[in-house]
Amino acid sequence: MSHRIDAQLAFLIEADKLKSTLRATTLCDRSRRENSGEHSWHIALYAMVMAEHAVRPIRVDRVIKMLLIHDIVEIDAGDNPIHGNHDPAEQDVIEQKAADRIFGLLPTDQASAFRALWNEFEAAETDDAIFAKSIDRVQPVIANLETDGGTWPEYNVTPAQLQTRVGVKVQRGAPAIWNTLKTRIDTWFTQNT
Amino acid sequence: MSHRIDAQLAFLIEADKLKSTLRATTLCDRSRRENSGEHSWHIALYAMVMAEHAVRPIRVDRVIKMLLIHDIVEIDAGDNPIHGNHDPAEQDVIEQKAADRIFGLLPTDQASAFRALWNEFEAAETDDAIFAKSIDRVQPVIANLETDGGTWPEYNVTPAQLQTRVGVKVQRGAPAIWNTLKTRIDTWFTQNT
Repeated sequence: MSHRIDAQLAFLIEADKLKSTLRATTLCDRSRRENSGEHSWHIALYAMVMAEHAVRPIRVDRVIKMLLIHDIVEIDAGDNPIHGNHDPAEQDVIEQKAADRIFGLLPTDQASAFRALWNEFEAAETDDAIFAKSIDRVQPVIANLETDGGTWPEYNVTPAQLQTRVGVKVQRGAPAIWNTLKTRIDTWFTQNT
Repeated sequence: MSHRIDAQLAFLIEADKLKSTLRATTLCDRSRRENSGEHSWHIALYAMVMAEHAVRPIRVDRVIKMLLIHDIVEIDAGDNPIHGNHDPAEQDVIEQKAADRIFGLLPTDQASAFRALWNEFEAAETDDAIFAKSIDRVQPVIANLETDGGTWPEYNVTPAQLQTRVGVKVQRGAPAIWNTLKTRIDTWFTQNT
């Protein structure tokens, strides 16, 4: 038992590093950039609050678990801003390696289960994963809207780009939420560009 | 529907402020103090990994939800270090008022459900709440052990105090985890005091 707890604690101690992975978006008060640990908490809370808007039936407990671990690979791979330019194939290799290493710290049965859940999220094919991916895209839009466009000007983001890179994914899992966001986005761009 | 989503987003935007509530403990690399948002993520992950050590059967999905919202009142009430001195009765009044205000941002049905879950956590009487409270006490011990005692010297913490203020609570919900922690704590104090 003690050896098992040691392995679990090793994983949880390693996970602490996610609090030092910085994302492009800032907090809603613009005081600093958000880190991937607190982002993971926030979107798990988003899922808990907004599960009813999933386009198809989901198991919110699975969605929350996915979201709690979805960014852990960033400890090795870093965060890639959605409006930045990176090579997806190269990024995928790095993230797979990170998943091997980090989930591999857990006892074998849990390493497999966590890896399977992370794979499911990445594949974005099941209803749970589709909704989780939607929610992951909602929170940065809100952060940008709350901070006068946030990173949008810096990345020269247009409403058309938001529709392609964000809207399509949010719409796929939670169309009602995208409707609300779209209205707020259009209002912001009308007033600020 | 849109009005409902607006209320949910108002709550989620308010929740962002939890990322600016600082705790006594630092990150495991000692780079800065931990905030209550990332702490909430970390202990939800702790619960997900360590649910099997609950002394009685629990529903881990409920425990995770409790932990995601357990510190939200700190947006108004701040964090009270476990080894600090504060008036619990006064603190309780402030936290109840904070819970009214913050959960009150949600649509009525969710405000009631979230408040009930938070009340259950605070009361620490159900098996789920007892385990959630245990887990909430584990992570700071690990953070302190990872940082050469962390805040223990500053607060003049003794092993006896840790047994009373932390051990009793961890033991109540997850005795196997406390066994492991106790061994690590005793080793640290033997080597460092």
